[in-house]
Amino acid sequence: MKLHPAALADKTEVLVRFSDVDMMRVAWHGSYVAYLEDGREHFGKTFKGVGYDDYFRTGYVAPVVNLTIDYKQSLKCGDVAVVETRYIPTEGAKLILEYVIYRKSDMAVMATAQTTQMFMTADGEVQYTDPDFFVEWKRRWLKN
Amino acid sequence: MKLHPAALADKTEVLVRFSDVDMMRVAWHGSYVAYLEDGREHFGKTFKGVGYDDYFRTGYVAPVVNLTIDYKQSLKCGDVAVVETRYIPTEGAKLILEYVIYRKSDMAVMATAQTTQMFMTADGEVQYTDPDFFVEWKRRWLKN
Amino acid sequence: MKLHPAALADKTEVLVRFSDVDMMRVAWHGSYVAYLEDGREHFGKTFKGVGYDDYFRTGYVAPVVNLTIDYKQSLKCGDVAVVETRYIPTEGAKLILEYVIYRKSDMAVMATAQTTQMFMTADGEVQYTDPDFFVEWKRRWLKN
Amino acid sequence: MKLHPAALADKTEVLVRFSDVDMMRVAWHGSYVAYLEDGREHFGKTFKGVGYDDYFRTGYVAPVVNLTIDYKQSLKCGDVAVVETRYIPTEGAKLILEYVIYRKSDMAVMATAQTTQMFMTADGEVQYTDPDFFVEWKRRWLKN
Repeated sequence: MKLHPAALADKTEVLVRFSDVDMMRVAWHGSYVAYLEDGREHFGKTFKGVGYDDYFRTGYVAPVVNLTIDYKQSLKCGDVAVVETRYIPTEGAKLILEYVIYRKSDMAVMATAQTTQMFMTADGEVQYTDPDFFVEWKRRWLKN
Repeated sequence: MKLHPAALADKTEVLVRFSDVDMMRVAWHGSYVAYLEDGREHFGKTFKGVGYDDYFRTGYVAPVVNLTIDYKQSLKCGDVAVVETRYIPTEGAKLILEYVIYRKSDMAVMATAQTTQMFMTADGEVQYTDPDFFVEWKRRWLKN
Repeated sequence: MKLHPAALADKTEVLVRFSDVDMMRVAWHGSYVAYLEDGREHFGKTFKGVGYDDYFRTGYVAPVVNLTIDYKQSLKCGDVAVVETRYIPTEGAKLILEYVIYRKSDMAVMATAQTTQMFMTADGEVQYTDPDFFVEWKRRWLKN
Repeated sequence: MKLHPAALADKTEVLVRFSDVDMMRVAWHGSYVAYLEDGREHFGKTFKGVGYDDYFRTGYVAPVVNLTIDYKQSLKCGDVAVVETRYIPTEGAKLILEYVIYRKSDMAVMATAQTTQMFMTADGEVQYTDPDFFVEWKRRWLKN
């Protein structure tokens, strides 16, 4: 996965739990999905307007329609991970975020990832143009 | 934990997943909570009327207010567990279930457990007498 | 994600748990990672030789280095998912599997996915040619 | 569950994740098991000597043999929980911890819990007297 130029970036920290770790004594590869979500939620607080509660309030949901993770090295129990979440501008009516997960102790890259979310109304109608709240969010946060 | 005489009992099987297992190469103790829920859901299908969808439909929720698990032996990745779910009659307006988790290969007891659920309306009002649907359920399934 | 021609294919079923489901009342997107693992483990039992226990026994580990999931529709609590796991031949020293997750009730496609695993010795040395056990596995299972 | 007088106490914070939350829009009751483990691990760092890595190093494991949780109120997605972990002295060769989980915003009690761990050698022999490392730990941390 090649990372793209990001328009906005945010960082948060996650502690790797005992229950995240598998028989190989490293964080189970599925655990990273929650770390990405931690990154995404934190991004939505820093750049207010794209958290799940913002979607609720404005009558939308923003399901993940694609998830891609490249695993580079292994996180261990007790490691602190730094999740960098980056907003990737796109033409379509969707939200593309990229992520770099670092091990805090040496800032080595553990994984890179991308999620794509689309927008639907609460009753499941897919939006093919940006919903108003997202137009507003871009206007507010993106430098032109 | 001493098991009580059960009025109804049901069994279902669960496969112990790779992701359930911890560094010790046994099922993480928290994984058992999902196994108990598998048992509870299956019980609610066998003795129709006490599944989460029945609560929804009748306007109630039935949150777990107490959970107790005694761990005896360890399940391993790939083990099939048999969850026996048993209904324990009680006076109060609550649902008490007991569970025995067996390893299917030799039916050795891995854990015993108990959950207590109370009933609340969807907007959070605790019920101090049995809701109608539960009175009905008891009438239907319990021999007298 | 475009699916590739598969040399081997296997199917297994997974029950969508209450604890898999999120606030949106659909299976959380991270839950699918466990469903894929269920598929992969079952594949490894059907086509014996590529389960995590086979790796252990032969002194290898086979970590997932890439995971990609395309979400199409949403699974709900109580749904039974059918996970089809397909082996995709490749030149490199790696194991590529593709997955189709169906909703059993109507066999609608809920998600497609791909995982890539590479081989390492237990002490972390990456293998650039197929380990013997994998050469053996291909010989055994792949028609030529 | 009645809480006992604690000889040592420690606090840590946990963020309630989107993936912890269920259809009822509250933290799934099984999620609390991980919160307790967060508390236990943090306790083991504050009062050094009873973390899972200490067990490893000294050749022991300390499996949870009993878990009891009383749920009082519901945590929501985005809530910060404060987990207070308290050491309860006992005669037997075991480690008993009690927990109070608070909602940070108003320090209301969300749950109380207790875990009992026993000590085994790595090859599964139960210890009926305190292992040396635990005798040492008590000497170090407990005021007499």
